[in-house]
Amino acid sequence: MNKAEIVQLIRRKQSFLCVGLDSDPAKMPGHLPKTAEGVLAFNEAIIKSTLPYAVAYKLNIAFYEALGEDGWHALARTIEKIPKGEALIIADAKRGDIGNTAAQYAKAFFEQLDCDAITISPYMGADSVTPFLAFDNKWSIVLGLTSNKGAEDVELQRLENGRFVFQETMTRIAKLGNSENIMFVIGATKAEYFSPIRSEFPDHFFLVPGVGAQGGTLEELKMLMNGDIGLLVNSSRQIIFASSGEDFAKASAMKASELQIQMSQMIG
Amino acid sequence: MNKAEIVQLIRRKQSFLCVGLDSDPAKMPGHLPKTAEGVLAFNEAIIKSTLPYAVAYKLNIAFYEALGEDGWHALARTIEKIPKGEALIIADAKRGDIGNTAAQYAKAFFEQLDCDAITISPYMGADSVTPFLAFDNKWSIVLGLTSNKGAEDVELQRLENGRFVFQETMTRIAKLGNSENIMFVIGATKAEYFSPIRSEFPDHFFLVPGVGAQGGTLEELKMLMNGDIGLLVNSSRQIIFASSGEDFAKASAMKASELQIQMSQMIG
Repeated sequence: MNKAEIVQLIRRKQSFLCVGLDSDPAKMPGHLPKTAEGVLAFNEAIIKSTLPYAVAYKLNIAFYEALGEDGWHALARTIEKIPKGEALIIADAKRGDIGNTAAQYAKAFFEQLDCDAITISPYMGADSVTPFLAFDNKWSIVLGLTSNKGAEDVELQRLENGRFVFQETMTRIAKLGNSENIMFVIGATKAEYFSPIRSEFPDHFFLVPGVGAQGGTLEELKMLMNGDIGLLVNSSRQIIFASSGEDFAKASAMKASELQIQMSQMIG
Repeated sequence: MNKAEIVQLIRRKQSFLCVGLDSDPAKMPGHLPKTAEGVLAFNEAIIKSTLPYAVAYKLNIAFYEALGEDGWHALARTIEKIPKGEALIIADAKRGDIGNTAAQYAKAFFEQLDCDAITISPYMGADSVTPFLAFDNKWSIVLGLTSNKGAEDVELQRLENGRFVFQETMTRIAKLGNSENIMFVIGATKAEYFSPIRSEFPDHFFLVPGVGAQGGTLEELKMLMNGDIGLLVNSSRQIIFASSGEDFAKASAMKASELQIQMSQMIG
């Protein structure tokens, strides 16, 4: 899915909501089996009920790998359940390794699983991102400033040139591609940095986690929008675990719909 | 496997060699099927032939994920082929995410796959490492200064306090645990930094990739040793693809044995 198609999808659905499928069996409704099969059934119901309100689904790979081989199977089957072109499919994998290894990860997520996008950790620098950019119509979503407390340890360290590590990192990574194949992760809890970030990167889309459970609010994200909207805002637990009863899919749809209505007002 | 057991293993085998199972089907001997089953047969033969010379095996997870579900199966079966206590089993996964997600990765690699260690990318800071430290007798091997060119982009940026990003990162991460549960990745190609790194972290083990294909030499690594030896030196392609014929396992053993002999002289 290219950038124009994402913008179109956002305008059509009047939403920039990304639903995070952090499908932890321990938190799923009690009537579902706590297995990879249960996860697949859970995901299928959530996707079906939230698709009118979501423009992206983010699969948190950790939750599938924690289930072993069966988890990888549930991951692949879940991706097949998302109608192509109806939502961007993001593998939230935060991979990052030397070139020959990054190329294998690209193969895993762009070819084997046919995801549209993958999240990437830039600690190892440019050559850990480049191999992902060789794929047409696929997105590298690189960590910029994350929503967690640990962002202080590396990302918010100040360099001798006065800039933060995350800024310098984003600038270097941005040069490897363009706003048609690179997005950045910007945490919703870091509102004080939104204006300078958007000024420095006017055209890039940002994937924004941290709304809901982690404390960020939609209101503050206005500062991070651009003319293409320029945001995919993720909500995971708040939506998918909205109810622990048999009505969980309906409850998820209601929560997603609430967010979509707020977003439609922001899209204006 | 705890630190004393690793040191014992190194002294007994007179080796600090880690064999990297970057088992790319495209590079395996032609008589083996280019499938996950072929990878498993390849790995089993390599493990059997190199076990006398190796104290660790490092499984590069990308190469298994690139094969989809079957790859995850081959990964799990490969780990079962490594005799417990005879070599440290390292998942080279370079994971790193917020706490609740990191906990799932720890479950995947320490419980589901029963690896002894996992490599971790510290871009997101302390809370992306902490969940891994909750497991007894398991190791978090955190990226410090890596062997690739991209190390310049983030790791070797200089902070306003005069230190490099990688130094500050290692200092902050080291405080979360101790030299009994944390190791660091230090690339073999970065010899000019070895002495200051060892001075600052006298007790930690370092996992050192980059010898061979990437250009680092064993000789220079003397600067990085400590009284416990303190190193696990990885070689992947140089060993496992030593021959593309049916004699590949024997050729791998010969290459591993050559390195072990050099290492035994360094152990002295």
